[in-house]
Amino acid sequence: MIQPRTLKGFRDYLPGAMMPREELVNTARKVYRSYGFAPIDTPTLEYAEILLGKGSDETDRQMFRFQDQGNRDVGMRFDLTVPLARFAAQHIGTLGTPFKRYHIATVWRGEAPQRGRYREFMQCDFDTIGTKSLVADIETALVIHDLMLAIGFESFTVRVNNRQVLSGLLEKLDLAEKSTEILRALDKLAKIGPEKVAAEMQEAAGASAEQAAQVLKLAEIGGSSDEILSALDKLIAGSEKGETGVGQLRELTQATAAAGVPADRLQIDVSIARGLDYYTGTIFETFLGELPEIGSVCSGGRYNDLASLYTNQELPGIGASLGLDRLLAAMEELGKLEQRTTPAEVFLPYFDAQSLQSYLKIAAQLRGAGFNVELYPEAKKLGQQLKYADRRGFKVAIVAGDRELAENNCQLKDLKSGDSQTVSLANGAAELITAISEILRDSA
Amino acid sequence: MIQPRTLKGFRDYLPGAMMPREELVNTARKVYRSYGFAPIDTPTLEYAEILLGKGSDETDRQMFRFQDQGNRDVGMRFDLTVPLARFAAQHIGTLGTPFKRYHIATVWRGEAPQRGRYREFMQCDFDTIGTKSLVADIETALVIHDLMLAIGFESFTVRVNNRQVLSGLLEKLDLAEKSTEILRALDKLAKIGPEKVAAEMQEAAGASAEQAAQVLKLAEIGGSSDEILSALDKLIAGSEKGETGVGQLRELTQATAAAGVPADRLQIDVSIARGLDYYTGTIFETFLGELPEIGSVCSGGRYNDLASLYTNQELPGIGASLGLDRLLAAMEELGKLEQRTTPAEVFLPYFDAQSLQSYLKIAAQLRGAGFNVELYPEAKKLGQQLKYADRRGFKVAIVAGDRELAENNCQLKDLKSGDSQTVSLANGAAELITAISEILRDSA
Repeated sequence: MIQPRTLKGFRDYLPGAMMPREELVNTARKVYRSYGFAPIDTPTLEYAEILLGKGSDETDRQMFRFQDQGNRDVGMRFDLTVPLARFAAQHIGTLGTPFKRYHIATVWRGEAPQRGRYREFMQCDFDTIGTKSLVADIETALVIHDLMLAIGFESFTVRVNNRQVLSGLLEKLDLAEKSTEILRALDKLAKIGPEKVAAEMQEAAGASAEQAAQVLKLAEIGGSSDEILSALDKLIAGSEKGETGVGQLRELTQATAAAGVPADRLQIDVSIARGLDYYTGTIFETFLGELPEIGSVCSGGRYNDLASLYTNQELPGIGASLGLDRLLAAMEELGKLEQRTTPAEVFLPYFDAQSLQSYLKIAAQLRGAGFNVELYPEAKKLGQQLKYADRRGFKVAIVAGDRELAENNCQLKDLKSGDSQTVSLANGAAELITAISEILRDSA
Repeated sequence: MIQPRTLKGFRDYLPGAMMPREELVNTARKVYRSYGFAPIDTPTLEYAEILLGKGSDETDRQMFRFQDQGNRDVGMRFDLTVPLARFAAQHIGTLGTPFKRYHIATVWRGEAPQRGRYREFMQCDFDTIGTKSLVADIETALVIHDLMLAIGFESFTVRVNNRQVLSGLLEKLDLAEKSTEILRALDKLAKIGPEKVAAEMQEAAGASAEQAAQVLKLAEIGGSSDEILSALDKLIAGSEKGETGVGQLRELTQATAAAGVPADRLQIDVSIARGLDYYTGTIFETFLGELPEIGSVCSGGRYNDLASLYTNQELPGIGASLGLDRLLAAMEELGKLEQRTTPAEVFLPYFDAQSLQSYLKIAAQLRGAGFNVELYPEAKKLGQQLKYADRRGFKVAIVAGDRELAENNCQLKDLKSGDSQTVSLANGAAELITAISEILRDSA
């Protein structure tokens, strides 16, 4: 006999974990589609040369890579951005631009397993490719906003910055050559504080104390969007790049406000830098009001050229990625996940052994009305069946013995309150359908 | 520069191919859930020992198998049944029985690529585990029936048989030892005809001409369900196993009829055998009325013991699998697929460069009413924008220049008929929302 087990760093999803995951993916899909993003998929396996050297040394090392049956050197995708670049280079002639796509799919990284980190996880990306227009940036902010609301969060902040603001300042300070090191130091601001960041800027980037202070002065600008924009205007004056960046931030915040996004849900935050060289304009991070310490749950930004490794065609774009695992962890911690292991609301015990056809008919009527209904398959003792229903989290049970069925009615049991009512099954179970709707509405 | 290309046998899904695929998966998910099946997922990679020797020599050979970074011998799953067996053995104590799950996921087989066959494809399975009750068989038939209707097929037949009928007959004929060879021959009946099947039964299974004729007599029983059941009663009389099988077929057809399934959509077909040793009771195949030659689009059956390789606990069950690729090919051939590459119905050209905020507001209002809306990101010439809309398959376009916006109205253009109408934007765009709904309803 073989021991049933999963590989280290991999996991099974039981229904209780899979249902909220499916719902989250469905919500993301709906919001993406509402803005005209279309789905794509790409193969799990790519030629290794497509994937190698596109992320970091670390992603190369972590890649699941092997020789296939035809001795091709292949790898499993470690993100959805590299496959998108290959895909866009290959198909952009057919697709045309602007091209708006979402891609929700599994990726693999052989990293050392640790709490909350797995070797197989899902990414949930959307991007607009082939346009430099700031409208795409504005819509990206709106998608993130709508997405957080649709998932069920009231309190959250999309933090927005523009890389050109910082680039402009670094140019002004003659630090443009050292931007990678400066950004890397700046990214640690929330973690290690301004003094240590200043020290790192001086050590790693060779900045003077005065230069480091200027960069930190930028990062520490706070207040309302208007206040931040005024402060930036002054700090950045004279740098064309910086002024462009501030102008874009101004237009973006005005447009999202006009589209109905409240000021507390979209804030300029000049301290966010989002890693190294990839982003070139608008950048986003998103924090939960009730759980900011979990980190950004939706991040992204604008890039100049997606696919320069595979094509000469310039493909500028902007996109973001929803952090599914992080969000699910947050929702669990905040008690926002239902503790159920069935997608059905209605439980129909197989109470009277002779009445199967009646049960099948009731179940069909309720499904026709849009309910999910599970009929227990065996005529076991009612108590045993109801215990099963309780454990799985059904909302109501329909108890109908031969006596009830002879009178064309049933007992409708609210499994939360324990209340029971006698309901008629006449007229296509119309009364039952209404009564179930009421219980479900009250419990929602 | 690296040539952007996919591996042989793998494919990209562009939006036009991905959208119907997503819709089909969503439909399957909805129907499965309506019967209380819950989603699960398992890892792509399993220990090779979990996967090896579970299918055939062929699946072993076709498996993508390699050493991971920790020198573990791992493989990519080639179906969803073997992972389900491992999963059930590992978790059934937590899950409890009966356990109803669906699993919609990608699998990999390194077979020689040929037309319509890929090395990466999706399976879409549902199973009820841990009960021998025929209610689960009946519900499996009902799920398949509801699924075909929900996908949009009116004309189809679920063909049902019971392996015990044939086993009973083979016992009666003293051919029980040779059932594998007999079944293998019988499976070819539709392809090669009765004479060649009889010859193969004699050659491969050592059956006499008379025995082969008896088996073929069974397979050739036709007519209505009642006629078939009467004929089977006679042929099988005296075999306990055979009588059980006929009894189950009778109960299943009566129950599905009572649940509202028309007789032409569920028929007994004693000629279907579904491969070799795995199935032990009810078996299903499903054929499209307009395209039967494409083969079964949803198949499955009952098995005695799912996971005997991984656990001592007996886990009987029944399930079936929707053939997504085959169905999509059929839908394409039958002209049932919409030729669109956008999930949005409404196209909003960025007509007047100064009016971005108005467009963002209109788009938000329409999204709030449930429409999917794409705003073009650049203020290009209107003709160019409308050409883009045409190519993607939007249904309506909203044209609003500065003059229209000043009067708080817009032109609503039906992109199919070419008709335009002037519509007010007052009251949260109420008139526009109604007018779009009407056009979409008429075009559906």
